[in-house]
Amino acid sequence: MITLTVELAERSYPILIGSGLLGRAGILDPWLGGDDVLLVTNDVVGPIYGEPLQRLLGARRVETISLPDGEAGKTMGTLERVLDRLVEARFGRDCTVITLGGGVTGDIGGFAAAIYQRGVRFVQVPTTLLAQVDSSVGGKTGVNHPGGKNLIGAFHQPACVLADTDTLQTLPDRELAAGLAEVVKYGLILDAEFFTWLEQQAVALRRRDPASLRHAIRRSCEIKARVVAADEREQGQRALLNLGHTFGHAIERCAGYGQWLHGEAVAAGLSMAARFSERLGWLPGGSSARIEELLTRLDLPVRPPQIDPREFLAAMSMDKKVRAGEIRLVLLRDIGEAVVTGDYPPHELLEELRATFMAEV
Amino acid sequence: MITLTVELAERSYPILIGSGLLGRAGILDPWLGGDDVLLVTNDVVGPIYGEPLQRLLGARRVETISLPDGEAGKTMGTLERVLDRLVEARFGRDCTVITLGGGVTGDIGGFAAAIYQRGVRFVQVPTTLLAQVDSSVGGKTGVNHPGGKNLIGAFHQPACVLADTDTLQTLPDRELAAGLAEVVKYGLILDAEFFTWLEQQAVALRRRDPASLRHAIRRSCEIKARVVAADEREQGQRALLNLGHTFGHAIERCAGYGQWLHGEAVAAGLSMAARFSERLGWLPGGSSARIEELLTRLDLPVRPPQIDPREFLAAMSMDKKVRAGEIRLVLLRDIGEAVVTGDYPPHELLEELRATFMAEV
Repeated sequence: MITLTVELAERSYPILIGSGLLGRAGILDPWLGGDDVLLVTNDVVGPIYGEPLQRLLGARRVETISLPDGEAGKTMGTLERVLDRLVEARFGRDCTVITLGGGVTGDIGGFAAAIYQRGVRFVQVPTTLLAQVDSSVGGKTGVNHPGGKNLIGAFHQPACVLADTDTLQTLPDRELAAGLAEVVKYGLILDAEFFTWLEQQAVALRRRDPASLRHAIRRSCEIKARVVAADEREQGQRALLNLGHTFGHAIERCAGYGQWLHGEAVAAGLSMAARFSERLGWLPGGSSARIEELLTRLDLPVRPPQIDPREFLAAMSMDKKVRAGEIRLVLLRDIGEAVVTGDYPPHELLEELRATFMAEV
Repeated sequence: MITLTVELAERSYPILIGSGLLGRAGILDPWLGGDDVLLVTNDVVGPIYGEPLQRLLGARRVETISLPDGEAGKTMGTLERVLDRLVEARFGRDCTVITLGGGVTGDIGGFAAAIYQRGVRFVQVPTTLLAQVDSSVGGKTGVNHPGGKNLIGAFHQPACVLADTDTLQTLPDRELAAGLAEVVKYGLILDAEFFTWLEQQAVALRRRDPASLRHAIRRSCEIKARVVAADEREQGQRALLNLGHTFGHAIERCAGYGQWLHGEAVAAGLSMAARFSERLGWLPGGSSARIEELLTRLDLPVRPPQIDPREFLAAMSMDKKVRAGEIRLVLLRDIGEAVVTGDYPPHELLEELRATFMAEV
């Protein structure tokens, strides 16, 4: 088992990564509050891993709520169901909310934990690759609003994250690939060497080689933990983690939430960010082709669906990174070097979108 | 103008207290973020103080939303209206939410600011005595759940609080009295001298003498700020501020939210806490009579409405201070000295409730 610590002073917490962790009696004991536990899971993962997890909780009083899986269910309505359950169970401030599932389950359950009684303890058991490398680090929780993704939420750090890599063996291929999009992102923003390693390991990752997956998860979490430790509330550097996300969120929104997996939209968004960086002359020529080749080898899309460029731009401008009407983007200076900037000619962005969507007609 | 600072490291903020502050051009300028401002107010106060406040905002882009006044409207539904408005206006992370009104308006608007885009800037302009002495210090925000008061919420510190004492001149008598209940509470928990001063000033406070009100607000905010600075997230000492509130919340809940003003329920709750403390032999005999005399002179109720003792106990046990089924109460060792404790014989509490409600039949 690997233990990484996310360093956030009194909110520091461990990420436990390894095989068979859901079978280790007592592993969660140090991280639970009182005896009351709400287990938030989903209809896909609950039936497989709910029982092993319950065994880890011993004689505690455990209530379970199963949510619909998928981005379409990440709403205020679903959040209220979780809150209602906490109230009905008459759980006090010393209860613990444990989320078992992917990013959506973690985001909703974590947000419920953030605002129930102004904040209760939260333990995350991510079962998808995307959740293990992304949602598990940094404490972002929340739900979507019809007007935009993740517009309502809170920062709420977990007490502990338990990432059992065995759960990835039951993950559908499409979801595995979606998680790899975020892994590629970490290489792109901060670690060229890791990016090269991913190029070498693409086949092994696709066939779920445990050692390759473990290293990919570990390195991703290390990079994200370092960035988050330096900038917990996203005042500056943390925004780098949004590489590909302003484009990606616009894809998810225009295509209709749930049509594209988040990671798939991020993959196409990474490619769009790379191509735009190249258009601006910031990224060495050929780099975006190299990035797209890796994404394609990982079975990920590199182009958005057909959308009107102006509609797409409007969707981008609803992103949280917009300041005073200026769309701030994360762009690339090189593979392994990203920057957050609003300092580009706005018409170039529209031109880039026109070129992207024209090319598809 | 008096400026008090609530010391919370990088979340420290000033409380500006004085007469005519809503007429001082530029007074809010240092505390606003970008140019986008959502003004959250209510149907009672908005028509009176909305315009002066708008003038303080100059050429900024101001959207206004007016909420129903009163505790009954402090719901997830009202919260969603505020969030919808922020999304519709396409406000980014650099916007500011300003609340103009009493505790309910501040709690809902502050909670919306806490969870919109995972937290935006918040400025509070409390216009009731209760909000000026209580809600303005400490960053508690939230809404009620049908299962209990303030069960859903967040800690979100304002950037600044502006308490214009002139707004108290238009406050209905009943609301002025309700605010004084919280003022009395501060004397009871930590400052016997202030309690004695209140006994001397009861008449002046009731007839809204500006100097008396200003001192009462200042001293209340000082006491609360000191307690909050020592324990922002209510792990310990901050719970002292809940003196009278576990009883009070049960009154509000059993009577139906909105029937009793919060401060009225707190007044009866202070009296119940004092009487129970005397029953346990903790509070010197005669003290609860002295407390009730002051509350009565301030036109406040000292008895709850007729409620079945067991129903009342069940309502108390839904309070956030419940840990592992034990009802933790704030009780008095003396006037000016409160303690948080679960260490009392539970049957005594039921006996006390029986005595209270029997006496009323």
